[in-house]
Amino acid sequence: MKELGYYNGRIGELSEMMIPMADRVCWFGDGVYEAHLCRNYHIFTLDEHVERLFKSASMLEIKIPMEKQQLKDLLNDLVKRMDTGDMVVYYQVTRGSGKRNHAFPEGDANLWVTLTPKTFVPSPDPVSLITAEDTRFLHCNIKTLNLIPAVMANERAKRAGCYECVLYRPGYRVTECSHSNVHIIKNGIFYTAPTDLLILPGIARAHLIQACNALGIPVSETPFTVDDLKNADEIITSSSTNPCVRACRVDGQAAGMKRQDLFMALYEWIMNEYYEATK
Amino acid sequence: MKELGYYNGRIGELSEMMIPMADRVCWFGDGVYEAHLCRNYHIFTLDEHVERLFKSASMLEIKIPMEKQQLKDLLNDLVKRMDTGDMVVYYQVTRGSGKRNHAFPEGDANLWVTLTPKTFVPSPDPVSLITAEDTRFLHCNIKTLNLIPAVMANERAKRAGCYECVLYRPGYRVTECSHSNVHIIKNGIFYTAPTDLLILPGIARAHLIQACNALGIPVSETPFTVDDLKNADEIITSSSTNPCVRACRVDGQAAGMKRQDLFMALYEWIMNEYYEATK
Repeated sequence: MKELGYYNGRIGELSEMMIPMADRVCWFGDGVYEAHLCRNYHIFTLDEHVERLFKSASMLEIKIPMEKQQLKDLLNDLVKRMDTGDMVVYYQVTRGSGKRNHAFPEGDANLWVTLTPKTFVPSPDPVSLITAEDTRFLHCNIKTLNLIPAVMANERAKRAGCYECVLYRPGYRVTECSHSNVHIIKNGIFYTAPTDLLILPGIARAHLIQACNALGIPVSETPFTVDDLKNADEIITSSSTNPCVRACRVDGQAAGMKRQDLFMALYEWIMNEYYEATK
Repeated sequence: MKELGYYNGRIGELSEMMIPMADRVCWFGDGVYEAHLCRNYHIFTLDEHVERLFKSASMLEIKIPMEKQQLKDLLNDLVKRMDTGDMVVYYQVTRGSGKRNHAFPEGDANLWVTLTPKTFVPSPDPVSLITAEDTRFLHCNIKTLNLIPAVMANERAKRAGCYECVLYRPGYRVTECSHSNVHIIKNGIFYTAPTDLLILPGIARAHLIQACNALGIPVSETPFTVDDLKNADEIITSSSTNPCVRACRVDGQAAGMKRQDLFMALYEWIMNEYYEATK
């Protein structure tokens, strides 16, 4: 198949897939999701993502209608149906179907999968960032489908010709970006916001911390500000579909780019892990 | 028809309606909505709701694919297809369809309508409320489909055997409920939170203010706290599907119920307006 859509056991070309209007995603965005890379039909970091999906679902009391291993088996089976082995594996669980009613419905949650071809081509070339106020809810640790503020922030970045929009809370405390975590290196230390309610505990972020540990780069999980970001030696964003991105500009001004050695060491560690795991 | 579903010109029984998996509501909850009452095939406060839908859409840069009058004509036409003239009229606009990508898509927004039978039976009988922290985003003035925190708060109220969950921000400042505004009467004055980013500018709320004006009850649009709520003379919630509800308990303790005269005057004004407009 070219692009696969799956919904509660039904499988078809994504562009032709239909879902019931009564799915609660339609009224409440009531669900949680994961999205990550597959290469050569090997799904990268599948265990960690499935683990997080179950955690997200559990925090919202959504009961995923299968066991973790069953879901992994299903995903591994579905990717084999694709014409190419390089793709983004996306899946979500929504809190069942029924009449529009805030109260939890009877019946099972709905399981969705989409597979869309994508060959991830890493690049150490730096990108530009903008900053904006973080107006999101206090559940950013849960990977939900309530993503309007992320959509708006991303569109803002796009219009500014930038790769991402870095979000900050009161006191200019940096949280994360519209769909990435963000980290800085200053005086040889890797700083990243702590995993509280304000950021997603990124899996690419966790791997960057592993890379730091392996490379002997000290890690500090402490909040940093927009000023710290602008004065950092290096700025790195990470997401599961683009796990190590260097930034050279923030809000139109030059930033970072002072520790090529450290950035490249992290970048190569991350890319090497990805290629080794998916060869 | 028993329950009507409409999607971009397609019409069918709601339970059988399917929508494309590529609608952005599925990935981002990327849309805005309205829901209100219809009696005897007369849609109550249609102008105000359509006005607010366009305002919500405009704040998110969603282009509704028809003019206001066309939308009103469509809704007035659709309600006539129903077996009963008493129903909830629900409609939403989602930001188009396409591959999952945060950036705004090309192409038109999608228009959805559902009509579900409901005969609104007003009651002056008081209800119970609970309170909980307001963890929502800072766009509560826009009527979006990003409703997970509202779903969770409502479920909490339901489990406590209560009608609604009153939300408060830091400092115990009351904002609104999971799907209603909330107001208090104290010393003869009607207090209601101001219409900032923290609450929906409720249409039932606006009509309650009109009722106060007509009845000579002073109105103060100033924030009040959970303590003020618990010590109020009367507590009233309002939503477009239940526009004037009296509360007698908050967090398990007796509250309000001290100015039956004022509550009943407001209640009767609101119900009279509703029945007159839909006879």
